[in-house]
Amino acid sequence: MTDIADLVARRAKLLGPAYRLFYDTPLHLIKGKGVRLEDADGKQYLDAYNNVASVGHAHPHVVAAIAAQAAILNTHTRYLHEGVLNYAERLLGKMPAELAHAMFTCTGSEANDLAMRIARQHTGGQGLIITAFAYHGVTDSIAQASPSLGRYVKLGEAVRTVPAPVQHPGEDATVVGQRFARHVREAIADLQSHGIQPAALLVDTVFSSDGVFTEPVGFLTPAVDAIRAAGGVFIADEVQPGFGRLGDSFWGFERHGIVPDIVTMGKPMGNGHPVAGLAVRPNVLAAFGDQCRYFNTFGGNPVSMAAANAVLDVIEQEGLQANAHRVGAYLNEGMNQLAHTHPAIAAVRAAGLFMGVALADDAGLPDGAGAARVVNALRENGVLLSATGPDGNVLKIRPPLVFSQANADQLLNTLDDVLRSV
Amino acid sequence: MTDIADLVARRAKLLGPAYRLFYDTPLHLIKGKGVRLEDADGKQYLDAYNNVASVGHAHPHVVAAIAAQAAILNTHTRYLHEGVLNYAERLLGKMPAELAHAMFTCTGSEANDLAMRIARQHTGGQGLIITAFAYHGVTDSIAQASPSLGRYVKLGEAVRTVPAPVQHPGEDATVVGQRFARHVREAIADLQSHGIQPAALLVDTVFSSDGVFTEPVGFLTPAVDAIRAAGGVFIADEVQPGFGRLGDSFWGFERHGIVPDIVTMGKPMGNGHPVAGLAVRPNVLAAFGDQCRYFNTFGGNPVSMAAANAVLDVIEQEGLQANAHRVGAYLNEGMNQLAHTHPAIAAVRAAGLFMGVALADDAGLPDGAGAARVVNALRENGVLLSATGPDGNVLKIRPPLVFSQANADQLLNTLDDVLRSV
Repeated sequence: MTDIADLVARRAKLLGPAYRLFYDTPLHLIKGKGVRLEDADGKQYLDAYNNVASVGHAHPHVVAAIAAQAAILNTHTRYLHEGVLNYAERLLGKMPAELAHAMFTCTGSEANDLAMRIARQHTGGQGLIITAFAYHGVTDSIAQASPSLGRYVKLGEAVRTVPAPVQHPGEDATVVGQRFARHVREAIADLQSHGIQPAALLVDTVFSSDGVFTEPVGFLTPAVDAIRAAGGVFIADEVQPGFGRLGDSFWGFERHGIVPDIVTMGKPMGNGHPVAGLAVRPNVLAAFGDQCRYFNTFGGNPVSMAAANAVLDVIEQEGLQANAHRVGAYLNEGMNQLAHTHPAIAAVRAAGLFMGVALADDAGLPDGAGAARVVNALRENGVLLSATGPDGNVLKIRPPLVFSQANADQLLNTLDDVLRSV
Repeated sequence: MTDIADLVARRAKLLGPAYRLFYDTPLHLIKGKGVRLEDADGKQYLDAYNNVASVGHAHPHVVAAIAAQAAILNTHTRYLHEGVLNYAERLLGKMPAELAHAMFTCTGSEANDLAMRIARQHTGGQGLIITAFAYHGVTDSIAQASPSLGRYVKLGEAVRTVPAPVQHPGEDATVVGQRFARHVREAIADLQSHGIQPAALLVDTVFSSDGVFTEPVGFLTPAVDAIRAAGGVFIADEVQPGFGRLGDSFWGFERHGIVPDIVTMGKPMGNGHPVAGLAVRPNVLAAFGDQCRYFNTFGGNPVSMAAANAVLDVIEQEGLQANAHRVGAYLNEGMNQLAHTHPAIAAVRAAGLFMGVALADDAGLPDGAGAARVVNALRENGVLLSATGPDGNVLKIRPPLVFSQANADQLLNTLDDVLRSV
C-alpha cells in the first residue's frame, strides 16, 4: 500500500507548483501492458485515454528496437545515418506526394513551433489563426497560440482565434465549412487591419482541445482555401489525431480531402519515446531551408528513428488502423445507445478511436462538474479517461489502438454504471 | 564501401535544405563504443567532440536502464511515479540548496524556452540579455536569442547582446568581470530606454558558441549582481558545460562562485536519450507555477528519468568528473606545449574536458578557414572535432568524459601532424 499523500507532498517539494496531477485521488502507476495499467496496490485499469502508448503499453517490438539501436549507436543528424532516411521515406510514403520533406524534433511542441517558423519565413507574414480553445504546445511562441492554457498565458499579438467548427443539427459539410471559413476570413481581415500579414491557419484536425469535432467530413476545405487566398499556409496539427487512430484514414486531414502545406506530428510516433516531426511541401520549406539552418540535437537520432520505425511496423503488422476503424465504430454505436438511456450524454462525436462525449446538465448546458465526477468515478471503477473542451464537459476517449471490442464493452458498461450513480 | 554521395543526395531529397552535415566529406557512422566511432567502411575515429554521449557511446549501463524501464512502463507526469521524484532529488542534490525545484523537458531548447517564460512571469519584464554569438536553442523564442544562427534569424525586440567576456593578457577576474558587468548594465539601460524591463541575463557558463571563455574564474559575479539590481534574474545555461565535464566542478556556474536563479541543462543528461530540464529557486518559479501550468508529454517520463539516473550512476561510479579534471589538465598542458611549436595556435582556453583552441593566421587574425582545414584534416586522420566562435576559428574539443590520457595523446599527436601539413 503506497502512500499517495506522501508522494504528492514529495512531488510538490521537488517539482514545484507548475505540475498538475490527474484525478481527485492521483494515480500511482507502476507498470503497463497493452491497454492495461497497474497501480502500486496491484489494481488494474483499462486505459481508454493514453494515445501516446498508441500500439500498447510496453510493446515488446518497440522496446526491442530501442534497446538494440541504443546498444549500437546514438548520434545526431550532422552525420549521415540510414535510420533517419529510411524512416523519413517510410513516413512520407504515408503522406500525399506533395509533402516531400520530413524534419524531426523531440516533441509536438517543437514540431508546431518549427512549422510556424517555416510558415513565417515562407510567407513573410506573422499572423497565425487558431481555434478558440486550441492547444498546440508549450514553447513560448506556441503557448501564445494555445488559449486552452488559460488566461495568464497571453495570446501573441499576431495570433487570432476563430470558433471551433461546431456542427448544429441538420447542417452539412458545406454549411459548417462555409461558417468556419467565414470566421477565418474575418480573422485574416482583422490581422490585416492591424498591419499583420497572415502566415498560417493552424488546426488540430479533430479539434481535440476544443471538444473533438470530427464531422461532417469536408468542412475544412473552404477555410484552407481562405488562408491560401490571403497568402498564408495551412498547417495540420496531427499530434493527437495522426498515425491511424481515426480508422478511416491515417491522418485527420485525409478525411477532409485536403493536402496541407505542413503536417505536424508527435505523441504516438514513438509509443512514448520522445520523437516528433513534420512533413512539408518543398516550396514552403525553401526559404527557411536556404536562410536558416535547423539542428535539433536529439531530433532524428538513430534510436528515436528506430522507435518510430518500430511503431509503424506494429501499426501495419497488427492492422491497428483497421482495428481503430472497427472497434471505433463499435464503441461509437454503443455510446450512441448509452445516450438513449442517459440524457446527460448530449452528443457523441467520433472518428475511429478518437471520441468526444459531451455531457450536459438537466438544463441542457455543458456540465463540466458532472464530467469531472464521471472521470473520477470511472477511475475508481478501473477505467481511465479525461475531459476536454472549454467547459471541460467533453469526455475524451483516446485509448491505445490495440483496444478490443471486449475493452469497449468494459468501457461502455462501466460508464453506464457510473452515469447511473453520479 | 558505402556511397556517401548517394546518401547525401537521398538526404537532400527526403529531409530538404535546412539540415547541415559536418565535414567536406560527410561521415557515415554506424556504431560507437566509449570514445570510438566507426564508419560504414570500418574506419575507426576518436571522438573528441560529442559531449552528448558523455559517459561514452552506447554505455551498457544506460542502455540497460532504458531497455528495462521501457519494458515496464512509460507514461507521463500527470500520474505519480517515483522515477521522476528520485531523479529530481538526486539532481537537486548536486545543486546549491537554493535551487530546490526541478522541471523536465526533452531538449535544451525547451529548457531555455521554459526558463525564459518563468523569468518573464516572475519579473514582469520581457528583456533578455545574451552574449554576441550565443546559441541557446531552436524554438522560435530562443532562436531569437541565438545570434549564432545567422543574420536571417532575427533577434527578438526585447533581446540585447553584450560582448563575450574575453580575457586580455594580464587581466584578472576583477577587470574582466567589471567590463562584462558594464556591458550588461549598458544593455539594461538600453532596454529600459525602450520601455522594456529586463527579465534575465542568460549565458552559457563557458560561452561555448562565443569561442569558449573559461578564465579567470569569478568574472561572472558583477554581471549577476547587475541584472539582479535591475530586477532581472540570472539563468545559467549548463546545456553544454554541465554534468561534470569541467572537472573542477559539476556545473559551470560553481566555478564562478555564484548561485543562479535558474539552471538549464540538456545534452549529456541522458547520454543521447532526449531528456533535459531546469532547476529553479522556488520564489522565482512561484508566479509561473501559480498562474501557468506546465505539461510536457514526454518530459520527465519514467524511461527518460531512468536514462538520466543511469548517467549519474556512471558519472559517479566511474569517477568521470575526476577523470575530466585529470585528463583535461593533461590535455591542456599538452595543447599549450603544441602552441609553442605551432604559431597558428593563438590561445588555449579550457576547463576540464571542455577546450577551445583559437587558431590565427600569420597576421595574428582569427583563421576560420584554417580551422576548417584542420577540422577536415583531423577527420581524415581519424579524430573528430569541430570549430566554434564568431570567426569559426576556435577548435571545439568536448569529448566523452571517458576520454583517457592515451586518447589525449592521440588527439595531440594527430593535431601536431595536421598543423604541420595544412
